[in-house]
Amino acid sequence: MALDEGLLFASDSRTNAGVDHVSTFSKMAVFETPGERAIVLLNSGNLATTQAVVSTLRQALHSERPNLMSAATMFDVATLVGDAVRQVIHHHSSSQLAQSGVDFSCNFLVGGQIAGDAPRLFLVYAEGNFIESSPDTPYFQIGESKYGKPIIDRVIRPSTPVDEAIKCALVSFDSTIKSNLSVGLPIDLAFVRRNECRVGLRHRIEPEDAYFGSIRRAWGQGLRKVFNELPDPEWLGAGREQGGRP
Amino acid sequence: MALDEGLLFASDSRTNAGVDHVSTFSKMAVFETPGERAIVLLNSGNLATTQAVVSTLRQALHSERPNLMSAATMFDVATLVGDAVRQVIHHHSSSQLAQSGVDFSCNFLVGGQIAGDAPRLFLVYAEGNFIESSPDTPYFQIGESKYGKPIIDRVIRPSTPVDEAIKCALVSFDSTIKSNLSVGLPIDLAFVRRNECRVGLRHRIEPEDAYFGSIRRAWGQGLRKVFNELPDPEWLGAGREQGGRP
Repeated sequence: MALDEGLLFASDSRTNAGVDHVSTFSKMAVFETPGERAIVLLNSGNLATTQAVVSTLRQALHSERPNLMSAATMFDVATLVGDAVRQVIHHHSSSQLAQSGVDFSCNFLVGGQIAGDAPRLFLVYAEGNFIESSPDTPYFQIGESKYGKPIIDRVIRPSTPVDEAIKCALVSFDSTIKSNLSVGLPIDLAFVRRNECRVGLRHRIEPEDAYFGSIRRAWGQGLRKVFNELPDPEWLGAGREQGGRP
Repeated sequence: MALDEGLLFASDSRTNAGVDHVSTFSKMAVFETPGERAIVLLNSGNLATTQAVVSTLRQALHSERPNLMSAATMFDVATLVGDAVRQVIHHHSSSQLAQSGVDFSCNFLVGGQIAGDAPRLFLVYAEGNFIESSPDTPYFQIGESKYGKPIIDRVIRPSTPVDEAIKCALVSFDSTIKSNLSVGLPIDLAFVRRNECRVGLRHRIEPEDAYFGSIRRAWGQGLRKVFNELPDPEWLGAGREQGGRP
């Protein structure tokens, strides 16, 4: 989420290769020189691909080649991530294994701030190209995004305060976790406050997290309460009469 | 939704062949001899396929062949729908047009009650096979189902009263309509009360519907209220301190 206050990132940790092969891997990677640059990557899709992309980007840090710690702008950072994605997928797809029908694709969210540049947020596609958030669309989702999208659509604007945005992200994950096995705890959160160029907050929500538990309870009970208070349809009475019931 | 009170059906009316070709078609078809049988079909997927399936089933009513009005059980009804689906898709796929990469597939929800049988609800796949609802999973969705699933998962049980189930269906559609262009008003509702074997309620919600408007407003405002009352994360203060803000 690209907020006026800064960039908020949230990712779950569930990966699966079929329902009988479910594991926990963080989908968040941080590249940071506090005060100079803070870059956060979130990923979805094929785990081998996303791990290879992050490893490729980390290895490049120790080289003379352009890398995430030397890039001059966030646009250049997104380009580097896109290039790495394209390179890894090309490498994997060109092997004989590609015949097996495996989907090697992935998506990345790339956001952060480099001193002198504004905070920026990008969504990188499996093809290596990318789009950038804007005040009209201040957030991106990747992966299993539909279940949790309505609440984000309702709440998130650039002016949304970060504490509200965090609650929105948690409620969104709660909805997704309730309806889909492929998303699960822990949830990783990171916040890069505008113009600080550092990860000011990094927090992991474990399955037994008391705060997340209280959010889930309050949200579930609150929804039920709002739901119970919704007005009744007048025409239902007519239906009941038609149906022969008083 | 297969409720203790009876079967509730809801469908939107948006169809599209790309975002520049959006139209309104009801996705609900009713076959009824009041008091003897009431059968409701909802569909999703390729419009040419679903229209052909419904036309095939209607044409068969005037023949000696087994049809929806002569079938002895709802299982037989679901079998007839599945056979029609399979036949239509096979017919379309075997033509040269199938080379164009068009997706001819569709899904049907088939529910109702025939006197002497219980109310039953089936989900028919494009392959013509089908599954039946149960007390553990008392509802099915087809089409663009993910956005609106969380609220149904939270609310719908077999014991849910029909007025509550109607509100849940409308709230679910509201979430989907907010987040996805491919779903839109009007919404068709039908209710087959248990052991009445007739469509006791049939109601269409048009875009200017005042009741749906009041539900949308009450739900949106209620959500915001519940959201605003969620507890704040304690660890956010720590993040703020780290970030150098009081």
